Amino acid sequence: MNPEEFRAAGHALIDWIADYRERLTALPVRAQVGPGDVARTLPHHPPEEVDDFASLLGDLDRVVVPGITQVQHPRHFGWFPSNASLASVLGDLASSGIGALGITWQSAPALTEVEEIVVDWMRRLTGLDDGWRGVIHDTASTSCLVALIAARERASGYAAERGGLQAEPAPLVVYTSPHAHSSVAKGALLAGYGRENLRLVDVHPVTQAMDAEALAAAMADDAAAGRRPAAVVPTVGSTGTTAIDPVRDVVRVAAAHDAWVHVDAALAGSALLLPEYRWMIDGAEGADSLAWNPHKWMGTVLDCSLLYVRDPGLLVRVMSTSPSYLRSGADGQVTQYRDWGIQLGRRFRALKLWFHLRLDGVEAIRERLRRDLANAQWLAAQVDAEPEWRVLAPVPLQTVCIRHEPASLVAPDGTILDGEALDRHTLAWVEAVNASGGAYLTAAKLNDRWMVRVSIGVEGTERADVAAVWELIRKEASRIAQS
Amino acid sequence: MNPEEFRAAGHALIDWIADYRERLTALPVRAQVGPGDVARTLPHHPPEEVDDFASLLGDLDRVVVPGITQVQHPRHFGWFPSNASLASVLGDLASSGIGALGITWQSAPALTEVEEIVVDWMRRLTGLDDGWRGVIHDTASTSCLVALIAARERASGYAAERGGLQAEPAPLVVYTSPHAHSSVAKGALLAGYGRENLRLVDVHPVTQAMDAEALAAAMADDAAAGRRPAAVVPTVGSTGTTAIDPVRDVVRVAAAHDAWVHVDAALAGSALLLPEYRWMIDGAEGADSLAWNPHKWMGTVLDCSLLYVRDPGLLVRVMSTSPSYLRSGADGQVTQYRDWGIQLGRRFRALKLWFHLRLDGVEAIRERLRRDLANAQWLAAQVDAEPEWRVLAPVPLQTVCIRHEPASLVAPDGTILDGEALDRHTLAWVEAVNASGGAYLTAAKLNDRWMVRVSIGVEGTERADVAAVWELIRKEASRIAQS
Repeated sequence: MNPEEFRAAGHALIDWIADYRERLTALPVRAQVGPGDVARTLPHHPPEEVDDFASLLGDLDRVVVPGITQVQHPRHFGWFPSNASLASVLGDLASSGIGALGITWQSAPALTEVEEIVVDWMRRLTGLDDGWRGVIHDTASTSCLVALIAARERASGYAAERGGLQAEPAPLVVYTSPHAHSSVAKGALLAGYGRENLRLVDVHPVTQAMDAEALAAAMADDAAAGRRPAAVVPTVGSTGTTAIDPVRDVVRVAAAHDAWVHVDAALAGSALLLPEYRWMIDGAEGADSLAWNPHKWMGTVLDCSLLYVRDPGLLVRVMSTSPSYLRSGADGQVTQYRDWGIQLGRRFRALKLWFHLRLDGVEAIRERLRRDLANAQWLAAQVDAEPEWRVLAPVPLQTVCIRHEPASLVAPDGTILDGEALDRHTLAWVEAVNASGGAYLTAAKLNDRWMVRVSIGVEGTERADVAAVWELIRKEASRIAQS
Repeated sequence: MNPEEFRAAGHALIDWIADYRERLTALPVRAQVGPGDVARTLPHHPPEEVDDFASLLGDLDRVVVPGITQVQHPRHFGWFPSNASLASVLGDLASSGIGALGITWQSAPALTEVEEIVVDWMRRLTGLDDGWRGVIHDTASTSCLVALIAARERASGYAAERGGLQAEPAPLVVYTSPHAHSSVAKGALLAGYGRENLRLVDVHPVTQAMDAEALAAAMADDAAAGRRPAAVVPTVGSTGTTAIDPVRDVVRVAAAHDAWVHVDAALAGSALLLPEYRWMIDGAEGADSLAWNPHKWMGTVLDCSLLYVRDPGLLVRVMSTSPSYLRSGADGQVTQYRDWGIQLGRRFRALKLWFHLRLDGVEAIRERLRRDLANAQWLAAQVDAEPEWRVLAPVPLQTVCIRHEPASLVAPDGTILDGEALDRHTLAWVEAVNASGGAYLTAAKLNDRWMVRVSIGVEGTERADVAAVWELIRKEASRIAQS
């Protein structure tokens, strides 16, 4: 495809995207396809002929749009928000169109230096002190794995340079909350710690936040038994209930064992743009690393995860490579981001953040976040006020955890009379809501019982959308309770 | 930014990209900036006002374009090609614009199933048998790390589910060539094996390919000493000289120890689109995994690395997570690609491959690859015919490794008279070429002496460009030799 063909097709695709975003609200939120349905629409053999662009656009309509759950839809309340703001989409297009290669500072100095500047802007905008330095990774999963590997190496005295983790006599241990994201346990296992060395520390029964005294006791037990506490991962805004672990206390406890503290604020980091929410990471300056995803609630299109560290040298010592074919005269005077993570080749991801901040403006983003926080409080108040409905966890952020508790299944004092029937009821009404196409919600387990998360924060979600999902929820739950 | 604003700005950006691609040839190939130059053009404080789109486009011209080495320039011969074909750029734009969320099959069935179909098309197009199943990762670094972690777990009987690698008494060992990409050693260290358990197997002095008998001896030594050979990474198309390790022999040797074989064909995989190049991976059906990057020579815009495995269950066993908030009724009937790699959140990367194949067509891509292969042979013949110039390694693919060997530094029989002076000369003329802006080349070490790689394969590189760089090379080298 030459530039002139690109010009014509590109204009058509831009229009297609604009139209798609405008007509989103008319689509069912959950993809209405079953396993294999999409694959069956496509040939098994690769194309032999060249297609015209119109047929590609036709396939976006025919195959792709009906085949995805519309997470940009204002009535999407599932998982966490995954906003792809159109300003950031343009930044990502600029990145692809320019086609820079981020393997070394020399290959694209601007890719490195714009990233340094923009992650530093984000540091200032979120109130982090100037002792933090940042990098853009793809996801919080990667950021956490990078932190856990760096922690492993620091705790083992850089065993990777010798016989590796397998030569270490003292088991290294990782601590997190049972409500930590699945990527924390996965990262610990991928890094080689082993499941027996992963401690899920007790949480407070109401806030669901990690109990720092239980953490202290677990670390002391391990140390007394000859094991070495290597890392603690507190979560700020857990996936289940947006619980907020006490960072300052965790840092204090971890410091006694010289353990790495990685703060996982994947969702909640967006709220740090609001000064009134910075209490959430009080004490984080004593941690070693902190990650959050602008590609969630803030809305810089996936993939865009910020990892901040107090001492980049601890990453570089573990991740650095310098084969002859990557050396240049600038080495030693510049940042080599390849040494801060797993991948050598990096996209120019800073452009999407740059475009997002400059075209939407941080004040407009803040207003939107405050709107969502207010909508969550409003919804929680509605649920609280409704007989047989319950808000199951505090609502510090934008997610409201709810359950319909019919009198036949739950006593007035909250005692669950028939837990399995309650689970069946919960899963039935959430499935009815999702199958309707009118909204999408995620069920999750809390204290071994199913509940439903209403996670507010899509760019287009207004109060009317929250009111509408609440009406749909009540309608489906009562219909099912009566059937 | 609303859809109508996006429409206007998007059209302007598409035009900007088309114009940029058209005027590329007039730009210096190497970025003409020094450390910190780009950062100094940007404010240290985040923007408080909203910018108009014209100022963003102006900054692409002012900050970004002069701040990158133009790897899309037809006279870029550095590293390996990193083509960002415009058809694939449109596929990537569709991905960003739709903003799908790939965390589970349910969140975007089409994201999973189009990926399954398109990676299977790529399997057929590259002549891999139907025992391979594929996934798209970001880079070959990630693909290699994933393979080495899976190998570690298989060799340790899935230690991650118990005490982890640290509880394993027998050291696990990884084997590769000294010419393997830096990501192989990095992956082994990140996976916890430790440098002492990384064996760099001897290579053939002319082909630079791994010596399978030396591999067999190394593995036997380790096994006899109580260590466990866990993984071998043969390279097909090494970064230095595009050396091709003997896959069939490696597989045979590894099989005796039940070691995982991961074939790293990051660059050379593109050539598998040509039936006459499939001999390179003869025997690969006995390997466990094979990775290559369409984002290199083939030209599907970064990031797009294909990882094929014989048994996806070996990845899933190690990478799988199933927290309550990710479950759905489709589980067990569908592919969950999150369980094939590190990240939970995945972009809709299949779209860029889909667009690239359908809009450019595989036959046109094949023609371009054959053009580049012929150009490399042509250049090698020119160099061979020129007094005091030498081609230092076989040219099986598109990279020609050359050196200017003035009679004062190298005897007629090839004996190097003054190696340090030769290195200084090599580095001086390649720097002169690069500083001129007329072309870009990468210096690298071979047998501890510097040489220069002319890596052909940018989409726009024609014979005239190769002839021009050869003229520029001779001019600068002789100017420096005479000064």
